[in-house]
Amino acid sequence: MRDVAIIGVGLTKFGELWECTLRDLFVEAALKAIDDAGVDHIDSMYVGCMSGGLFVGQEHIGALMADYLGQGPIPASRVESACASGGLALKSGCIEVASGLSDIVLVGGVEKMTDVGGDECTYALATASDQEWEAFNGITFPGLYAMMAVAHMHKYGTTARQLASVPVKNHDNGSKNPTAQFPQKITIEDVLESVMVADPLHILDCSPVTDGAAAAIVVPADLAKKLSKKMPVKIIGMGHATDTIALHSRPDITTLGAVVKAAANAYKMSGKGPKDIQLCEVHDCFSIAEIMVTEDLGFFEKGKGGPAVEKGETRIGGKIAINTSGGLKSKGHPVGASGVAQAVEIVTQLRGEAGDRQVKGARIGMTENMGGTGASAIVHIMEVM
Amino acid sequence: MRDVAIIGVGLTKFGELWECTLRDLFVEAALKAIDDAGVDHIDSMYVGCMSGGLFVGQEHIGALMADYLGQGPIPASRVESACASGGLALKSGCIEVASGLSDIVLVGGVEKMTDVGGDECTYALATASDQEWEAFNGITFPGLYAMMAVAHMHKYGTTARQLASVPVKNHDNGSKNPTAQFPQKITIEDVLESVMVADPLHILDCSPVTDGAAAAIVVPADLAKKLSKKMPVKIIGMGHATDTIALHSRPDITTLGAVVKAAANAYKMSGKGPKDIQLCEVHDCFSIAEIMVTEDLGFFEKGKGGPAVEKGETRIGGKIAINTSGGLKSKGHPVGASGVAQAVEIVTQLRGEAGDRQVKGARIGMTENMGGTGASAIVHIMEVM
Repeated sequence: MRDVAIIGVGLTKFGELWECTLRDLFVEAALKAIDDAGVDHIDSMYVGCMSGGLFVGQEHIGALMADYLGQGPIPASRVESACASGGLALKSGCIEVASGLSDIVLVGGVEKMTDVGGDECTYALATASDQEWEAFNGITFPGLYAMMAVAHMHKYGTTARQLASVPVKNHDNGSKNPTAQFPQKITIEDVLESVMVADPLHILDCSPVTDGAAAAIVVPADLAKKLSKKMPVKIIGMGHATDTIALHSRPDITTLGAVVKAAANAYKMSGKGPKDIQLCEVHDCFSIAEIMVTEDLGFFEKGKGGPAVEKGETRIGGKIAINTSGGLKSKGHPVGASGVAQAVEIVTQLRGEAGDRQVKGARIGMTENMGGTGASAIVHIMEVM
Repeated sequence: MRDVAIIGVGLTKFGELWECTLRDLFVEAALKAIDDAGVDHIDSMYVGCMSGGLFVGQEHIGALMADYLGQGPIPASRVESACASGGLALKSGCIEVASGLSDIVLVGGVEKMTDVGGDECTYALATASDQEWEAFNGITFPGLYAMMAVAHMHKYGTTARQLASVPVKNHDNGSKNPTAQFPQKITIEDVLESVMVADPLHILDCSPVTDGAAAAIVVPADLAKKLSKKMPVKIIGMGHATDTIALHSRPDITTLGAVVKAAANAYKMSGKGPKDIQLCEVHDCFSIAEIMVTEDLGFFEKGKGGPAVEKGETRIGGKIAINTSGGLKSKGHPVGASGVAQAVEIVTQLRGEAGDRQVKGARIGMTENMGGTGASAIVHIMEVM
């Protein structure tokens, strides 16, 4: 396998983008990534999208995007792994470059979630769970993550204030990110006084509904400096794993088995461990998710993720900077795009281009993207070349 | 890149399978492929599915299937390219094995189309076209292919009897295939007297709505004989290309640009040409599609596909055997599964296990799977090892 690097990244504004269609968003992010890399063509492309069918009545998304990007007849593939679709696009592009089949591959993610009403959106998102045993019976994602939160509080003593510390930190980071959907700073009290969605999760514990797209250009590491003037970022570790689709099938719902396994594979491939990671974008779809993931990635002992975030250990300048972009909570969560957007943030940080939210001396970063209640997890570790 | 071979295949019955769910179908085909290969585990898997969201309210299909197959925590990816989703799964699995990342990869395709009513099914299928410029304005797939048929008739003199010769041949082949949804033999008169769906396409020119799944096991060619007692079939050529998503954007709608390009790439990779191919499964979603594809793959001069099928040149025993399985028309067309089912047929033929429909001395076969009106096309060439 050839080593792989990212030489260009692009991102749209995240938010309720009434004036943009699915294809507009993807093309904007893709052209920014192509411009950023300075390449004059691409050989192949991957598009992560969770549910073009239910959100905008559009499947066949790979071919559509190649066409609107003006890149046909190149091969274009749409990949889906619910909210980890973006991470899957990145992984797929890396495998194609690693195989030697292609040299310059565009990986992107996109979702246009605001063309449907709230009920339809909730229905579409629930298709990431087990339709027959979970969604059909009426439970939705806030309810599923609330069960994980209750179990974590019971087993480890995690508190509502610790949960609330996650969005407070992420909004603080997001306030320094010009693409963020909700850049407003918030307080612990704001979170605890906000509407309860599914006890113990308040609405400010939940990531929003978002339109947006993200893209990156993946090339062989040994060609990176020849192809682009930008500082390349090497993908040194990659892990992808699955867990039971239904929460009730797991022996312990306070840990995310797919995250543990995907991280172990990525650490093994890279020769690095949790202590080597300086910053990480994690999948904070709900506050409890960030706490569990920071434990399952090995940054904190199991059960200590809540106290860690409360003490500020995951702030920029803390022990490890988590979600410097603002995370899904503040930056926004266009489900198919989020995994690629995480990579865009890490590349931006490793290049030293993150402005007010820059992690000083950042050389090694990580992304953790997951689908459903963690039935799939995709992890990448990246290093400055 | 490592050379890749198929060592196991599996197929469910195709039809209106009321008693089976999406997951049941996939698992049945996957277990058959695993048994056929004789392997005791898989390293990774790809699932082709066009629209789990619109057909059965289920996305996150990779993780779901890994779970129900009892293979978690292995990586599982769902890929989508409309009706070419199965071909994309095969291609994706081949790339992963070729890269060296995995040795034993399951590739499968599945669709459960009969859980929704006719209008919803037509809507779901129309999402393979351009939603904003085609589907939204009311045209559906029979109408789109009817336009291609009218143009082909006008330009090349193709006749209604020539169109009708396609399903007549395919039903004849399908009558010898125990998994076929519609194994009844039909006549030219049956086709021409059947209900007109979109002039000039009668209902017997149109592939049916089908539930079903198909799977194959892909491994490095140099390990194939060690891993399995079955005769391995090597993938010697692979091509994937795109065209404009909307029919009206093309300079000529009597040719399928993506098929021409994908075939050229596959021929180049394999060092073979159209004359070397003894049998081919082509994407006969409508009669006109088979005629156009047999021309665009280079088996017949442009415009001569109609006379060729009418003269019997594409029958078993003719110049080149097209759709020995019965094709999408007679075997059935579970959209996400069809691309893999095509590969299952070619492997079965190359092993000499096709019974009454066996092509004598078959050593090199081909599959051509496409999405939408040919906005994506995926071609594989296979040879006995």
